[in-house]
Amino acid sequence: MVSGGKPGHKDTRVKEAISVASGFGEDISMASSYPKPEEKTLQTLRDAANRLRIHSIRATCASNSGHPTSCCSAAEIMSALFFHTMRYKPDQPGHRSNDRFVLSKGHAAPVLYAAWAEAGYLNESDLLKLRKIDCDLEGHPTPRLPFVDVATGSLGQGLGAACGMAYTGKYFDKASYRVYCLLGDGESSEGSVWEGLAFGSQYQLDNLVAIFDVNRLGQSEAAPLRHDMEVYRKRCEAFGWNTYVVDGHKVEELCQALWQASQQKGKPTAIVAKTFKGRGIAGVEDADNWHGKPMPKEKMESIINALQGQIPANKVYTILPPAGDVAQVTSEEIKMPSPPAFKIGEKMATRKAYGLALAKLGSASPRVVALDGDTKNSTFAELFKQAHPERYIECFIAEQNMVSVALGCAARNRMIPFASSFAAFFTRAFDHIRMAAISHANIKLCGSHCGVSIGEDGPSQMALEDIAMFRTIPGCSVFYPSDAVSTEHAVLLAANTKGICFIRTSRPETPVLYSQDEKFGIGHAKVVRKNDADKVTVIGAGVTLHEALTAADELAKQGTHIRVIDPFTIKPLDAATIISNARATGGRIITVEDHYREGGLGEAVAAAVSGEPGILVQSLAVSAVPRSGKPSELLDAFGISAKHIVAAVKSTFAN
Amino acid sequence: MVSGGKPGHKDTRVKEAISVASGFGEDISMASSYPKPEEKTLQTLRDAANRLRIHSIRATCASNSGHPTSCCSAAEIMSALFFHTMRYKPDQPGHRSNDRFVLSKGHAAPVLYAAWAEAGYLNESDLLKLRKIDCDLEGHPTPRLPFVDVATGSLGQGLGAACGMAYTGKYFDKASYRVYCLLGDGESSEGSVWEGLAFGSQYQLDNLVAIFDVNRLGQSEAAPLRHDMEVYRKRCEAFGWNTYVVDGHKVEELCQALWQASQQKGKPTAIVAKTFKGRGIAGVEDADNWHGKPMPKEKMESIINALQGQIPANKVYTILPPAGDVAQVTSEEIKMPSPPAFKIGEKMATRKAYGLALAKLGSASPRVVALDGDTKNSTFAELFKQAHPERYIECFIAEQNMVSVALGCAARNRMIPFASSFAAFFTRAFDHIRMAAISHANIKLCGSHCGVSIGEDGPSQMALEDIAMFRTIPGCSVFYPSDAVSTEHAVLLAANTKGICFIRTSRPETPVLYSQDEKFGIGHAKVVRKNDADKVTVIGAGVTLHEALTAADELAKQGTHIRVIDPFTIKPLDAATIISNARATGGRIITVEDHYREGGLGEAVAAAVSGEPGILVQSLAVSAVPRSGKPSELLDAFGISAKHIVAAVKSTFAN
Repeated sequence: MVSGGKPGHKDTRVKEAISVASGFGEDISMASSYPKPEEKTLQTLRDAANRLRIHSIRATCASNSGHPTSCCSAAEIMSALFFHTMRYKPDQPGHRSNDRFVLSKGHAAPVLYAAWAEAGYLNESDLLKLRKIDCDLEGHPTPRLPFVDVATGSLGQGLGAACGMAYTGKYFDKASYRVYCLLGDGESSEGSVWEGLAFGSQYQLDNLVAIFDVNRLGQSEAAPLRHDMEVYRKRCEAFGWNTYVVDGHKVEELCQALWQASQQKGKPTAIVAKTFKGRGIAGVEDADNWHGKPMPKEKMESIINALQGQIPANKVYTILPPAGDVAQVTSEEIKMPSPPAFKIGEKMATRKAYGLALAKLGSASPRVVALDGDTKNSTFAELFKQAHPERYIECFIAEQNMVSVALGCAARNRMIPFASSFAAFFTRAFDHIRMAAISHANIKLCGSHCGVSIGEDGPSQMALEDIAMFRTIPGCSVFYPSDAVSTEHAVLLAANTKGICFIRTSRPETPVLYSQDEKFGIGHAKVVRKNDADKVTVIGAGVTLHEALTAADELAKQGTHIRVIDPFTIKPLDAATIISNARATGGRIITVEDHYREGGLGEAVAAAVSGEPGILVQSLAVSAVPRSGKPSELLDAFGISAKHIVAAVKSTFAN
Repeated sequence: MVSGGKPGHKDTRVKEAISVASGFGEDISMASSYPKPEEKTLQTLRDAANRLRIHSIRATCASNSGHPTSCCSAAEIMSALFFHTMRYKPDQPGHRSNDRFVLSKGHAAPVLYAAWAEAGYLNESDLLKLRKIDCDLEGHPTPRLPFVDVATGSLGQGLGAACGMAYTGKYFDKASYRVYCLLGDGESSEGSVWEGLAFGSQYQLDNLVAIFDVNRLGQSEAAPLRHDMEVYRKRCEAFGWNTYVVDGHKVEELCQALWQASQQKGKPTAIVAKTFKGRGIAGVEDADNWHGKPMPKEKMESIINALQGQIPANKVYTILPPAGDVAQVTSEEIKMPSPPAFKIGEKMATRKAYGLALAKLGSASPRVVALDGDTKNSTFAELFKQAHPERYIECFIAEQNMVSVALGCAARNRMIPFASSFAAFFTRAFDHIRMAAISHANIKLCGSHCGVSIGEDGPSQMALEDIAMFRTIPGCSVFYPSDAVSTEHAVLLAANTKGICFIRTSRPETPVLYSQDEKFGIGHAKVVRKNDADKVTVIGAGVTLHEALTAADELAKQGTHIRVIDPFTIKPLDAATIISNARATGGRIITVEDHYREGGLGEAVAAAVSGEPGILVQSLAVSAVPRSGKPSELLDAFGISAKHIVAAVKSTFAN
């Protein structure tokens, strides 16, 4: 079914100047050394496109849902990519040396599955299990499938990930694999697409090709630019991309544009392909109201017969193998060269400890990279940049794209990216982080400047919902270190823990609490103040842990003792330690957090003990939009300072 | 200090063709009828710019924090806008007829406050209270100040709001006020800016002007395009804007470009202003490492003296009044013309009931507008569009901008916007929703397709974190209606409740539970199944409420009775009803939700009862990334179907 790539194959192509018949060909008529494919090859690609259509129509009919018309517009693009341009091992879709392909318009998943069936990796019969609960061919692609690096389906996210892969290929792997991203026209309304385009040209990612499948029609009406190809061209060119406008149903134009992209130095290439939604289906092509609808079952065979009738030849695909110049990575546990170099009582902001630890981690592993969105002098990612400039990626003020680039860097286990910004600004990327979880991504995010304790800058800069956000992410580890030593451990544990990790750091300086040889683990809380006479267990983190310790000192002077717990990770939460200490202190817990009440530490604790009889929880948290002011004033004004902890201990339980 | 606007003033300006000395003036030399300001006027504007600098420097020195250099680059832009171009009542900053101004680069807040001091609205002495806890002059602008319509400070969000204001002015108010938005160059890396630019040209918002303060320097390094003005020009033009590149420190160029913008029909105008950060401060202007830093206290006076020395004249500002052609809105309670027209037992998806109710609401109030991001045939916003096409805004696939546009429509209490999309895709706009809360915004968001019950489309389309997200928003009402009748009430209550409201709707059809005359209120739960012998209280919402009712039927056959509660709003949660019913059923609660465990219904309930002795909560929720499959299969596979409720009742409590 598939003839393995033959290194000599390229030489058999006739090299000659080409002339393209279509009016769209003007962009691609300049190359003189283009190895024009033989007509036989082109016919094979046309036939493959129709086979992809047939598979997509059959599969979506079988599932009685899905987007066959969105597949049909992309059929020639997929054919040209998978059976002419891309170099990969069909039997090893996830091979590190393969060219990468990202289907940003994830709803066209059936055409992707069809391509891998035509390439021989999937069985044709499997395609008919599309969208079934026991089949990994889901409605939108996820990395349950080895040929999917990043999940798509929330639109506008593929290009950023492709940028991360291309950056990794060019600057870290220094390898010859190329990255192709297929986008829809509708999704090009997403700003994140333009963040990706800006990034791609900024970093001269000439190993990256974005193909826009401009099929004119969105879900509920025409996309805003319809078939105005010149506007797409202008926008892509203005964003610094080498741009070709082609007829997306002419494989010869696609092959040539893709070849010319490979010759372009210093610029990524955009191929803007004019296509028709539902191409090849009479009465459906270019018609309204066919988005996300399978063909009527009774018409399926006649539609397929019409397509089949256009396929004269047997299929013999020539898929070129990759160059194989990508080094294997070792996945050994990373070890810090030295223990944390902080002394108990020394003052240091956890955000600075993050930067110091990350720079140190970078020395321990060449796979560690840092990304930041023009906040590196606040998050202290700049310390990593100073130590390892070649592994720092400035993403500028585009947090969505930053997360996507991190995702791309982490794909195929190449790099271990740490991306940082103000924690508040990760809310900008919530959809991307949500999708990263569906991608099983191994990315590390650090958010600084949490809570009202940042002070004067005011509420727009204060993260008060980030714990809630990251706690919803399946499998995400949420670190909330309270001193420099535990911050360094958080960084190391994050690097060695597969999955999404979030580290929440604080702006104010706080004293170091732990000794150099203290051990830390995910889901392991620390009891930092303990007395047999403790009346209440108080749980704080970051600045509020220090407020709790201050409260403990004040209460102790008055003869009241409280237990104080540092949870270290909010997710997973060390429920066992919390419950046993709560039981030892009369079943009483007070939580105190620099975060809104909802979804934060307090609710996490309340949920953890909700099935335990005899444990009551009182939560101190920020409960209204804050304002500018001094950090200490704000901790007081919003009810989370030592004073309020003392009052809560006294009024609620201890008396 | 301020001479009120005189209608005749415009006539005193010399009308003549202008020639602009600067190289940046080429864009603005074509107008022949331009009423060129007199030199005296221009000098006043130059002086005003320096006064704005002085105020900004003094204020940030007094607060020992803030961004004076970001103010200085924008000083002439602000001067030209506030003391020449904009028409407004200085003593009524929030007047409905005034021109609107949005400071998207919110960190330049001091220059905005300075402008309002120069205009006479603020006292100069107030400026020195900048960022103090008892002063509304916060670090970034918020609507605690009457001249601020939308909070800014998270970058890239101002233009979308300005688009909403301009759309409202042009199409709803049909009034002559104009909208000005000042952006930084750094923030133009945010994709949301390009979403706004696309929207502005799509809807021909010729009453909108975006001014880019291209001061080259970001927070931690130069912005990616530095001073490459031609790239900015190309990008703005490619996005369909009438574009001028000007010297942002020449008031004559700014005035002329702003005037030409007012003459432009059918297109919004972008003014790309080349400026220097820290302009006017020797040794600081255009220098690195001065972002967000006040001037050294010991140098303040000499810096200010140097600026003061450039101000020869006394200030006499001429501020033109607005045209006053904006109608007053009535803020009366909206009443539906008829009760919900659904019958108990009738099957209808709540998403469809949303569309029906919204169309009905649109007939009840001309202030209701609907927005959607190319999902209107799924959210059923299309029913509103069919009924009220002139009040429907298609926002295409750009959810961040959609929320911003809604914010702009709601500004100055003009419209009541309802924006809809798949609930999952509101995660895309979390930062915008967070900022909307800081804006005290009165916007209504409806998210459809929640949870695994959407079925085959798979996890990328399933909202499983939206309740957690919206619960964090201060003051947000989170409706989760479980049938068509309560959905209609949710829509009406949302329209009549100031603040952010979120309505979560479901894809599957479910039977109507409530009669036409049932009363609903925010924070009022319904007990939908009750028996004196109830052993457990089960709380579900949406599809899981129906699963709970099925479970109740099955258990009843076996002689076990359970109480079933419909919370109606998840925030505020009706804690009193939940607690009293829990007490009546042995202190036992089971929650069941089509949402992740974290931050959802279960945690909301656990938190609500966390201070109540003797109540235990068990939570059934989705706890891993789901997959494609049939809705019923997925409810079962992820542990939230009737079967699992029955099992939970039996195993945990009832036996």
